[in-house]
Amino acid sequence: MFHALIMAGGFGTRLWPLSRRDRPKQSLKLVGERTMFEHAVDRIAPIFQPEQILVVTGTEHVASLRAQAPELPPENFIVEPEGRGTAPAIGLGAIHLRRQDPEAIMVVLTADHFIADAERFRRVLTAAAQVAADDHLVTLGISPSFPSTGYGYIKQGQSLGIVEDFPIFEVERFTEKPSMETAFHMVESGEYSWNSGMFIWQVDRIIEEFQRQMPEFYVQLAEVEATLGTPGYEAALNRVWPQVTKQTIDYGVMEGADDVAVIPVDIGWSDIGSWTSLLELLPTDQNGNTVVGSHVGIDTHDTLVFGGKRLVVTIGLEGMVIVDTEDALLVCPSEREQEVRAIVRQLERENQEEYL
Amino acid sequence: MFHALIMAGGFGTRLWPLSRRDRPKQSLKLVGERTMFEHAVDRIAPIFQPEQILVVTGTEHVASLRAQAPELPPENFIVEPEGRGTAPAIGLGAIHLRRQDPEAIMVVLTADHFIADAERFRRVLTAAAQVAADDHLVTLGISPSFPSTGYGYIKQGQSLGIVEDFPIFEVERFTEKPSMETAFHMVESGEYSWNSGMFIWQVDRIIEEFQRQMPEFYVQLAEVEATLGTPGYEAALNRVWPQVTKQTIDYGVMEGADDVAVIPVDIGWSDIGSWTSLLELLPTDQNGNTVVGSHVGIDTHDTLVFGGKRLVVTIGLEGMVIVDTEDALLVCPSEREQEVRAIVRQLERENQEEYL
Repeated sequence: MFHALIMAGGFGTRLWPLSRRDRPKQSLKLVGERTMFEHAVDRIAPIFQPEQILVVTGTEHVASLRAQAPELPPENFIVEPEGRGTAPAIGLGAIHLRRQDPEAIMVVLTADHFIADAERFRRVLTAAAQVAADDHLVTLGISPSFPSTGYGYIKQGQSLGIVEDFPIFEVERFTEKPSMETAFHMVESGEYSWNSGMFIWQVDRIIEEFQRQMPEFYVQLAEVEATLGTPGYEAALNRVWPQVTKQTIDYGVMEGADDVAVIPVDIGWSDIGSWTSLLELLPTDQNGNTVVGSHVGIDTHDTLVFGGKRLVVTIGLEGMVIVDTEDALLVCPSEREQEVRAIVRQLERENQEEYL
Repeated sequence: MFHALIMAGGFGTRLWPLSRRDRPKQSLKLVGERTMFEHAVDRIAPIFQPEQILVVTGTEHVASLRAQAPELPPENFIVEPEGRGTAPAIGLGAIHLRRQDPEAIMVVLTADHFIADAERFRRVLTAAAQVAADDHLVTLGISPSFPSTGYGYIKQGQSLGIVEDFPIFEVERFTEKPSMETAFHMVESGEYSWNSGMFIWQVDRIIEEFQRQMPEFYVQLAEVEATLGTPGYEAALNRVWPQVTKQTIDYGVMEGADDVAVIPVDIGWSDIGSWTSLLELLPTDQNGNTVVGSHVGIDTHDTLVFGGKRLVVTIGLEGMVIVDTEDALLVCPSEREQEVRAIVRQLERENQEEYL
């Protein structure tokens, strides 16, 4: 049977001051009136029963996420005592899933990405399930719309045929975030897609990969798995998890796995990695501005105004990002927005807890 | 006897969004923890008894101003039913003052200007009183610190001698706000000072000038004066005032008067006409920023952050003005700040009363 695991940990530092420790990216209403997590659940609801949707998240987020998706069984929210990267999160989800259904096809999704074409997204997932049933580890590749230096890339190898209109390829290799020049050549070649971090595989197959490629973690995972459904589960998890080495699924499993397939798709995907990505995603007015909230502007262009309750007035601005929240305000040019992380680090150093 | 009339009407549109209809410039804490009006009263308190200080203001401001200066007798706040410009405001103050003291020397001051050297300011007022006692209309000129195009200028004529170290000159003429080039030459010549809008004269003398130069207003004023101290006063004022022609004291009286003297002084005067004037007035940090409130900046220079309760974070800004209030936020480059007025006009057209 077909199951989904939504990874909903993390914070989204680059979306400060809207994102905070207790209000992470997945709980923000960045696009429309639904949170990112609500969008993530909504868009798969037509193809998954609520019982088939698992969520893995952290202690600090679980209450908020349960409230956002009350239709999901509360026990489907799997809580990591602390985040150890995507590989352990997926491993923990996998053992829960295997207990429900040893034959499960497992779809790994993220809670903080945006997908414009949800219909096509659901279609590619069902196609991918067929490829996964054939023992492949499947990854969704995103057909690149520009030479991004912010994503990892996947190089397509030999064709594995076409499933329900979707061409399937062997993965030749995963690559790191490239330089601008490399990104340009990759996109031009037509042989690369963005690594979206979404995967489809048999639950047994991924656990076998942990056994083969991350044997220490596999033993730790087995220790937790042995307590599933018993009163000792939480104690075991709390004992084991702090000892788990942090690892991503890309490094830990995907790069060293055989029979990895990629399905390059165009589904209007964005990871909303930063404020300016909203300028591409949300509608702009005739001046190229994207405005959420109340705004009065004179001679203001290509500017993101992500307002709260206040009226934001701008005069003579070009390419700026203004984010106004209840207790903090950010003003910076678009091209400097990556430095928001430095601000958050500075606030951490200064123990300005109220803004973290 | 020596009396002061503080003119405290007006709104200060250019200081939006801090200034509002019910929170005019004179009631703002722009410099330190005292409002502009409180500063205006504080700085003359050493030389005037509270009973000697009159305030002329509008209906909408009087309660707030009385609360700011509870030491002044409540009846010393003279309320104009509507603002008719500086000449009628001064006329109204003058008839009240003449009733208290027909021999009064009247000092006309403003409530929304800043004066750094209050001690020297008080000294020049007492010197000016001696010149006024000699039948002159005295105006305080401000020795210009830069070629401002935002002020009117006063050209000095013949010397009238020196009083308590202050050189006194005849006024040769008053001039309008000049072009940059004209301003430059004026300042270079050393013969001009800024028109501060502060005056010292005998109360009888100014009322005679109204009679001679603004005869229609003089008749109207006499009609109100006849009711002073009677129950008919308010009715008379409310009947007469809407018919009074708007006029400034400069056009209405000063430009056509004889025996006008100017005392050019350097007292650290600023009218705080706009947000960037605070950049000159308030201390700046090593990056040239003036910050009121909480600010964290990366690579931010020559920027005014006039914050409210929020943390303001800026990255990569140069020469910007950021004003953050409870319900509205302004972001604009310093050189565009004069367009704040256009914003206020737009809000008026759109009937956005909550922001006016």
